Amino acid sequence: MLIKLMRPYTRKAQYYETDQMGIIHHSNYLRWFEEARIDFMEQMGLSYATLEQLGIMIPVLNISCDYKQAVRFNNNILIHSVISSFNGIKMTITYTITDSENKVTYTTGETTHCFLNKSFKPVSLKRDYPDVYVIFNDWIKRKADE
Amino acid sequence: MLIKLMRPYTRKAQYYETDQMGIIHHSNYLRWFEEARIDFMEQMGLSYATLEQLGIMIPVLNISCDYKQAVRFNNNILIHSVISSFNGIKMTITYTITDSENKVTYTTGETTHCFLNKSFKPVSLKRDYPDVYVIFNDWIKRKADE
Amino acid sequence: MLIKLMRPYTRKAQYYETDQMGIIHHSNYLRWFEEARIDFMEQMGLSYATLEQLGIMIPVLNISCDYKQAVRFNNNILIHSVISSFNGIKMTITYTITDSENKVTYTTGETTHCFLNKSFKPVSLKRDYPDVYVIFNDWIKRKADE
Amino acid sequence: MLIKLMRPYTRKAQYYETDQMGIIHHSNYLRWFEEARIDFMEQMGLSYATLEQLGIMIPVLNISCDYKQAVRFNNNILIHSVISSFNGIKMTITYTITDSENKVTYTTGETTHCFLNKSFKPVSLKRDYPDVYVIFNDWIKRKADE
Repeated sequence: MLIKLMRPYTRKAQYYETDQMGIIHHSNYLRWFEEARIDFMEQMGLSYATLEQLGIMIPVLNISCDYKQAVRFNNNILIHSVISSFNGIKMTITYTITDSENKVTYTTGETTHCFLNKSFKPVSLKRDYPDVYVIFNDWIKRKADE
Repeated sequence: MLIKLMRPYTRKAQYYETDQMGIIHHSNYLRWFEEARIDFMEQMGLSYATLEQLGIMIPVLNISCDYKQAVRFNNNILIHSVISSFNGIKMTITYTITDSENKVTYTTGETTHCFLNKSFKPVSLKRDYPDVYVIFNDWIKRKADE
Repeated sequence: MLIKLMRPYTRKAQYYETDQMGIIHHSNYLRWFEEARIDFMEQMGLSYATLEQLGIMIPVLNISCDYKQAVRFNNNILIHSVISSFNGIKMTITYTITDSENKVTYTTGETTHCFLNKSFKPVSLKRDYPDVYVIFNDWIKRKADE
Repeated sequence: MLIKLMRPYTRKAQYYETDQMGIIHHSNYLRWFEEARIDFMEQMGLSYATLEQLGIMIPVLNISCDYKQAVRFNNNILIHSVISSFNGIKMTITYTITDSENKVTYTTGETTHCFLNKSFKPVSLKRDYPDVYVIFNDWIKRKADE
């Protein structure tokens, strides 16, 4: 079987994301993690839109983020996402943001999620959506290629 | 009958709203207009939350905005909202953003709205929600007091 | 002489840009216009970063925006930018946002800008930065190709 | 000596901060932490604007945030900030976001900061800004009153 290769998410830092320190405001990284996560799932075959149509929402339970180096306007960034843990009830994704040219690591972070139905009740993917479960499970700890 | 007095909306410009020019990014003013509009309706007795419970959504059809003077971090602003036109199908609100201390006019703007139900179909307030119609109608061209 | 072709700006509507109406919040379009404008200038050979290094800032004097059709999460959009007027002191850019698949027009808008130096004083590009003037002037009313 | 009492920061959740799940998007909490932090410092006598005039910037080194209960549009929130550690080089602030009416805890979080000069070099407040050092030091672990 062929192992599908995953590409990292690429993105340019926008002007409106800067603040008066002249760097990207730290709140934007959570939005970039979200963009990367959605792209990552889409590459797995689990588009976020489809999941919401199935009635599955994936809210954030907690986040952490280490700002190592400031990103500036117009920097081109790469975001690598890895599912670091998943059990069908909860999932943790870790992110590394690097510069796409000089490979400097800007930021690392982590988001933990649960799976809810439209009434905001927890669902077990293993029991309720086994097809979705299998896909997430298959991607644990697999990294994108550059 | 006593004419109810309306207070303008007050707000501090936030750090995360600045950009690397050292001023508030222009996209934030649309958000401030929204804050002022929601506060204004609440003072009329038409809270936005209540309207959404009635199934009425008030999306923006068009906006315009003149940036006269840059707002900077920590500036205290006042926003005066006036319903400049309303016919139960469409409504236009005009806004003036001034400095609450030195009264400089920072920005003027205008938003035009329609009224939709939850299926995104237009509603006529006069026909479908006469109580709501009467209130909006009563506030046409009335200004807040300072 | 070869006429350089310009490509429109492409973009996906992000989850964090939605609001509880289930559509993209209207304030984001101003940010998309900015993204498109910066990309457009970069294609002209006038990167925004370079302009700021030259000491030229291009703040927004006024904006207007017509929301014709709501953009939703994950929609792929195209933004066509055209310099509709330019005299070295002021510049107006018009934008058309369409769906990259079904070609529906979502939004049209316009931003007017002046040119300032780092002390926030107006500059005349024709007099102070003739090389920059020539480029902008050359692009008046030229459209991107699809 | 009288111990100065500190009031928690109050805030209403805004419409433009919601997403299509119908709840406040998680990235906004970092912005609320910033608002609360700036207000907290202002109450200490250390306005953020003044610190920046002194040439002191206080960027975020890392953040963490636990989302316990979703905040919804129009909820009135209280944010209590506490300096949980401070040594003049680094500072950690913890935040608790509660509902101002029913006292439900929505979110807890933490931000760690360093102190930089305008060239983005670390400063020691104890050595370089002893007056500022004394104030921060005096507020370690002191809580706001309700």
